[in-house]
Amino acid sequence: MTVDMQQLGRQAKAASYALRTFSTETKNRALRAIAEALEANQEVILAANAQDMADGKAKGLTPALLDRLNLQGRLAGIAQDVRHVAELPDPVGREFEQKTLPNGLRVRKRRVPIGVLGVIYEARPNVTVDVAALALKTGNAVILRGGSETLRSNVALVETIRGALEREAFPVDAVQLITDPDRRYVYELLRLSEYVDMIIPRGGNALHTFCRENSTIPVITGGIGICHLYVDETADQEAALAVVRNAKVQRPSVCNALDTLLVQESIARDFVPRVVERLTADGVRFRVDEQAYHVLAPAENVQAAGEGDWDTEWLDLILGIRVVPDLDAAIEHIRAHSTGHSDGILTRDPAAMQRFVDEVDSAAVYVNASTRFTDGGQLGLGAEIAISTQKLHARGPMGLEELTTYKWIIEGDGHVRP
Amino acid sequence: MTVDMQQLGRQAKAASYALRTFSTETKNRALRAIAEALEANQEVILAANAQDMADGKAKGLTPALLDRLNLQGRLAGIAQDVRHVAELPDPVGREFEQKTLPNGLRVRKRRVPIGVLGVIYEARPNVTVDVAALALKTGNAVILRGGSETLRSNVALVETIRGALEREAFPVDAVQLITDPDRRYVYELLRLSEYVDMIIPRGGNALHTFCRENSTIPVITGGIGICHLYVDETADQEAALAVVRNAKVQRPSVCNALDTLLVQESIARDFVPRVVERLTADGVRFRVDEQAYHVLAPAENVQAAGEGDWDTEWLDLILGIRVVPDLDAAIEHIRAHSTGHSDGILTRDPAAMQRFVDEVDSAAVYVNASTRFTDGGQLGLGAEIAISTQKLHARGPMGLEELTTYKWIIEGDGHVRP
Repeated sequence: MTVDMQQLGRQAKAASYALRTFSTETKNRALRAIAEALEANQEVILAANAQDMADGKAKGLTPALLDRLNLQGRLAGIAQDVRHVAELPDPVGREFEQKTLPNGLRVRKRRVPIGVLGVIYEARPNVTVDVAALALKTGNAVILRGGSETLRSNVALVETIRGALEREAFPVDAVQLITDPDRRYVYELLRLSEYVDMIIPRGGNALHTFCRENSTIPVITGGIGICHLYVDETADQEAALAVVRNAKVQRPSVCNALDTLLVQESIARDFVPRVVERLTADGVRFRVDEQAYHVLAPAENVQAAGEGDWDTEWLDLILGIRVVPDLDAAIEHIRAHSTGHSDGILTRDPAAMQRFVDEVDSAAVYVNASTRFTDGGQLGLGAEIAISTQKLHARGPMGLEELTTYKWIIEGDGHVRP
Repeated sequence: MTVDMQQLGRQAKAASYALRTFSTETKNRALRAIAEALEANQEVILAANAQDMADGKAKGLTPALLDRLNLQGRLAGIAQDVRHVAELPDPVGREFEQKTLPNGLRVRKRRVPIGVLGVIYEARPNVTVDVAALALKTGNAVILRGGSETLRSNVALVETIRGALEREAFPVDAVQLITDPDRRYVYELLRLSEYVDMIIPRGGNALHTFCRENSTIPVITGGIGICHLYVDETADQEAALAVVRNAKVQRPSVCNALDTLLVQESIARDFVPRVVERLTADGVRFRVDEQAYHVLAPAENVQAAGEGDWDTEWLDLILGIRVVPDLDAAIEHIRAHSTGHSDGILTRDPAAMQRFVDEVDSAAVYVNASTRFTDGGQLGLGAEIAISTQKLHARGPMGLEELTTYKWIIEGDGHVRP
């Protein structure tokens, strides 16, 4: 089946015009209708998902990928998440920076939807529902392009969503799915600048790079985290061990997990072996620099760091350890190797805290806490569409407000510029 | 002379690390030193500019272009503008959205410099100083690429600026100029994503399109305004005439000047001839639709609108006029043809005002005022780096705050994620 991307774009744009006039209550009603429809339609959705799972197994997908793909037992939770989005405050329509200029012009800014979002993601079908709910809540139309492994699940989910929208007299083209798995449609979506206002890639480095290289539409780059913790000689070592362990092992497959531990030289002989001992119990393997290597007993799970290891997002139970003389060297390492996602210091020295916070320029900078908190839910946004590691528009976890823009409203009484 | 863009990038990045630690007062002192240096160095600068002017005349540049290029008699004003930037409040360092989460984590956001800006512009050498001052004030390093016609002027200005920075013990590479006019360096700058965080093109449509198509760095698209005013049957016609005239003739060469006038059918027979009569006195020529044509006496400066006329930014004393049945048709025309820069309604009907403000999605939406106010200075920003017509990061006039981003600062007491 071929897809007419121009038509998808036109339809999305037209839907976005209607969406921006809907009240918060109308949008919330549609969200609740979607939640109900997901529950009512679960047989159809789970049957489609079972087919995707069967195909995935036959193709030899890894257990981790199959787990992401699986909707069995998860639909009720997904429906609840949609109801939760309905409960969140609506940023659209909020006015700010009101002022009356000396010439009498009345100026204000108003939060408005961005318009049309293009979201490109990989195996997880729950993202389909998540993204649709966040887009609708903020009055945006969305064109979705999910992974090919989960196409049947996505078709079933999007048909369910569009059915609910139709019953609520919402424009059904507010949510559209690219139903052809051909990769050229990703490229075409990235060039649809006449209709699409923002591209959000959710996936690995290759996807983000492809989007940055090929898009004529602004792209939110993010989700790639080479994260650091620096432990200095004043740190509470017992607390530091707990934070390092949490940052590395609590969920190693995600972007805010720890990749490289930097340890101040003066405590390395004592602290590095303690880290290795503690995290070995969790099955962690280590890539360590020469200084760390020298203070460790030989062990199967400890190897010398190789070229590129400091620039690797492990997404696995692997931890890089490097010994540095001082804070300057730690900051220098972070500047050279961080992706600007989440980096932290563990210290009891107020001057070191302040310098780290001032000089490390990452989306999230931590003092005495695990990097795992870089998450919209954890930081109180209520929801999260992405984690941005670029500097423009939004940085770090992006919630509902980051799916809006603003317009200037300027009212006069026949004002002309002198 | 060839330029090593990698080196420019590395130097800019290194300078940006130093810049972000400077206090407001230190930055302001550097700005005042630049203003003094511009005055002290005026002979050298004006001599370089005179050479550019002579070359430009020999090459047959238009009087308008030569006027933009000319610094004669303007340097004192340019130096004053730099002092004015020193007086403006510094957005960097401001903290906001402070909160303590239920788990005790202390969270806040802090405004920080973006890092390194790449600014690509055309003939005006005053932009060189403008941009350098705004970048320094906000702690950003900048790589400048001005038009080849003004290369000697730009070299003299940038050397003056860097001299002042050096005397103030500022990193001189905070301001760098690409001194080779070869266009391939524009392309290379757009691919320098390792070092450059934001691209600001200041120029015509072709430059903006080139940047969007080729940049791997986020681009601020803007400065292209196909602007509309809609006059409905309730409007105060005398006031409307004054506003239309101001929007069209006060400075026709700029992006916020009026391009297309939409007139409600019920008043067209009366109002359209009045507009044509009034603006003919200013030398305006008209491209009008069939209905407007029929209510006008034949005249040399009135011709039927041709294909593409509604999609043309005139930048000249030309005005399109179209008669529309009602507000719906006006909004539809604006959606189809506006670049989302500045669009307004002239009316006394509150319902029409509200619908226009709600449904027209432009960076600046006007009620009973000239579109010429879309300008950082006019709207109280104190300065302007660009006018954005895209939806991300900033919309409409961009001042100092829009040259910053934010980071999350998260402080705990050994917090781990459960």
